[in-house]
Amino acid sequence: MGVVHRYKGDGASEFDWENVEAGAYTRGGAVGGSMRVVIGPEDGAQNFAMRYFEITPGGQSSFDRHEHDHGVYILKGKARVLMGWEVHEVGPGDVVYIEPNEQHQFESIGEETLGFLCVVPPK
Amino acid sequence: MGVVHRYKGDGASEFDWENVEAGAYTRGGAVGGSMRVVIGPEDGAQNFAMRYFEITPGGQSSFDRHEHDHGVYILKGKARVLMGWEVHEVGPGDVVYIEPNEQHQFESIGEETLGFLCVVPPK
Repeated sequence: MGVVHRYKGDGASEFDWENVEAGAYTRGGAVGGSMRVVIGPEDGAQNFAMRYFEITPGGQSSFDRHEHDHGVYILKGKARVLMGWEVHEVGPGDVVYIEPNEQHQFESIGEETLGFLCVVPPK
Repeated sequence: MGVVHRYKGDGASEFDWENVEAGAYTRGGAVGGSMRVVIGPEDGAQNFAMRYFEITPGGQSSFDRHEHDHGVYILKGKARVLMGWEVHEVGPGDVVYIEPNEQHQFESIGEETLGFLCVVPPK
């Protein structure tokens, strides 16, 4: 059977869903982050995973470079995004595709916490 | 290089992004729908695609059953979702995972147009 994870936030505080566990996101030097796997292996998903990240103002994701690509959708806040040697500023509704083996990093530059969905292929 | 597609809507009317083409979504008897591939092969993405669908009130997606699974994130409006023989009502922020080979259909049941992201693995 498929799965529904109901949103149970109020739109303002940290986003949260029924039956989704929150974890710290500190890997690789990330600062100020939390992570939730909203669709993943525990739901039976074998072909992709959808994660939700929050990064408090001034915090940042790890500086990363790896074989898998990312599909990102910004839900709230603002980010400075490094992709290769280019820097972009993005906000709610913006879509970012990070290619395989492209160095990348997100920094939360707004006054509001940055929140984004990030899709990855299977490991 | 990765890609940024900037959101260029006003949050109210049909969502739209820079360098993303809008198409009608009428396949398989869908009613009232539009589709945009916000991340896909044209961006170099080989491992997944992210699409954005809108369905006007009273409209519906096709009644579908296929090998690939779906990861859905509701951005606006309300939907009645058929998964297998179960029916769920979902709204903004809710996450839906549809398993491979599970019959499914979305109906737009709110007064506002339904808008959702839908992730698929490669064909």
